[in-house]
Amino acid sequence: MKQNGLSHSHVSRRGLLKGAGTLAFGAATIAAGFGSLSAAFAKGGVNEKWPWPYEKLDPGKTAEIAYNEWYRVFCGGAVISSIFSQLGEKIGEPYKSFPIDAFVFLEGGIVGWGTVCGSNAGANIVSNVIIGPRIAGPGSEKGAVIGANIMKWYSETPLPYYTPKEPRIKTAIAKTTSDSPLCHVSVGKWMKASGFPIGSAERKDRCARVTASVAYKLVEDLNAWKDGKYEAKAEWGPVANFGITAQQNCTGCHGSGIPTAPMPAK
Amino acid sequence: MKQNGLSHSHVSRRGLLKGAGTLAFGAATIAAGFGSLSAAFAKGGVNEKWPWPYEKLDPGKTAEIAYNEWYRVFCGGAVISSIFSQLGEKIGEPYKSFPIDAFVFLEGGIVGWGTVCGSNAGANIVSNVIIGPRIAGPGSEKGAVIGANIMKWYSETPLPYYTPKEPRIKTAIAKTTSDSPLCHVSVGKWMKASGFPIGSAERKDRCARVTASVAYKLVEDLNAWKDGKYEAKAEWGPVANFGITAQQNCTGCHGSGIPTAPMPAK
Repeated sequence: MKQNGLSHSHVSRRGLLKGAGTLAFGAATIAAGFGSLSAAFAKGGVNEKWPWPYEKLDPGKTAEIAYNEWYRVFCGGAVISSIFSQLGEKIGEPYKSFPIDAFVFLEGGIVGWGTVCGSNAGANIVSNVIIGPRIAGPGSEKGAVIGANIMKWYSETPLPYYTPKEPRIKTAIAKTTSDSPLCHVSVGKWMKASGFPIGSAERKDRCARVTASVAYKLVEDLNAWKDGKYEAKAEWGPVANFGITAQQNCTGCHGSGIPTAPMPAK
Repeated sequence: MKQNGLSHSHVSRRGLLKGAGTLAFGAATIAAGFGSLSAAFAKGGVNEKWPWPYEKLDPGKTAEIAYNEWYRVFCGGAVISSIFSQLGEKIGEPYKSFPIDAFVFLEGGIVGWGTVCGSNAGANIVSNVIIGPRIAGPGSEKGAVIGANIMKWYSETPLPYYTPKEPRIKTAIAKTTSDSPLCHVSVGKWMKASGFPIGSAERKDRCARVTASVAYKLVEDLNAWKDGKYEAKAEWGPVANFGITAQQNCTGCHGSGIPTAPMPAK
């Protein structure tokens, strides 16, 4: 999928981000020096061996499944289902043991609270469950990198990107750029641009198409990883840049009064 | 755990929330009328039967495990591990098949992006994986209700609530009320109050104790549910109240310029 329409001009503090692509992502910085202190607590479940077996999937077919699954298990559940259900059929375990439907709760930014868009949460669950957590050894950090970079892609891309073959809503659906991985911001900007309320069929179909778009992008990235061609590093390093976990549009919430985080003594 | 210290005065738009406890939570409202259209897509994984078997756990023991596990798998992974590792030992499957460590990525509000605090995400994963998604039939909605109400408790409670028996940091750790389920807001308010930077041992121990606090509260709620005594309904209904998925402190980001969501025609 070509990442057209990237709207960098919307990303505040852009000037501070030069070179961020070469920095470790924030979470790794948080964890530095503490990664192995409590290894004795590791429980070693039967499926905690990574990577899980993966066969390349068709992005378009996956997006169609995700679109339709949205109407059953909503954004997060649909991203997970669109990929794990296919891998369950192609490969079997450990995918068949994963309780996909439990992740309906990711809807509405986690049970309606408007936090992270469920499609972003679902994409991170899929990439990290397949490739593994960054603590699992060399190469396993790609699961977190793919998930993090999909949140950046989500924030910068006019969504929905993917149009289903047989959409339930036949009229055009507005595309909006969220500048944020959050449900509240993503849905709010779309509602403002389109004028449709949260309960409208158009808003629902917009979210189903966003879910399909994320599933499409995720399969592209997983296929590249399978081929040994996913070379990207995490493109966003908030802790190293700003001294706190953060998304990119500081001014979106803080306006011009952006606080300065306490920093370590030099 | 007594929910002492609830600081309702910090919650903006409080006046609008009267009676919200009797409303369906936002996500259910979003989904209304679309819950079963695509049932044919259900894949029926081997562990998609709810509730999963549950035996009551000790909240204090669970909090201690969560505290220590934070230093291995961080906030979200530690909440999941503290409960599923015990249930895996007591009960076995399906807990042993769940890839706990894959959820390290919840750290820092999902790979450092500062979205939902991983301990809240982990709590929702645990409650929904055990009790089931709301689409799984009568009673299964309690999984989402427990998860949603823990986010409200998290937002209103001075945290960390739980002090471990043998903390790594011996000095007092400041308690702060986040008024938000988000990592960025929760950590940011604590950093402002304490003056400690993100990479400090004190900030890390604070987050480990917050994780322990959430695990403690979650086990209390799961035990009450097991005894048939979890009567609460979701206490936050943003879609019904505001016409959009949302957290509670609108003014925290919007200041006095809170937008009005498009609403359906009367």
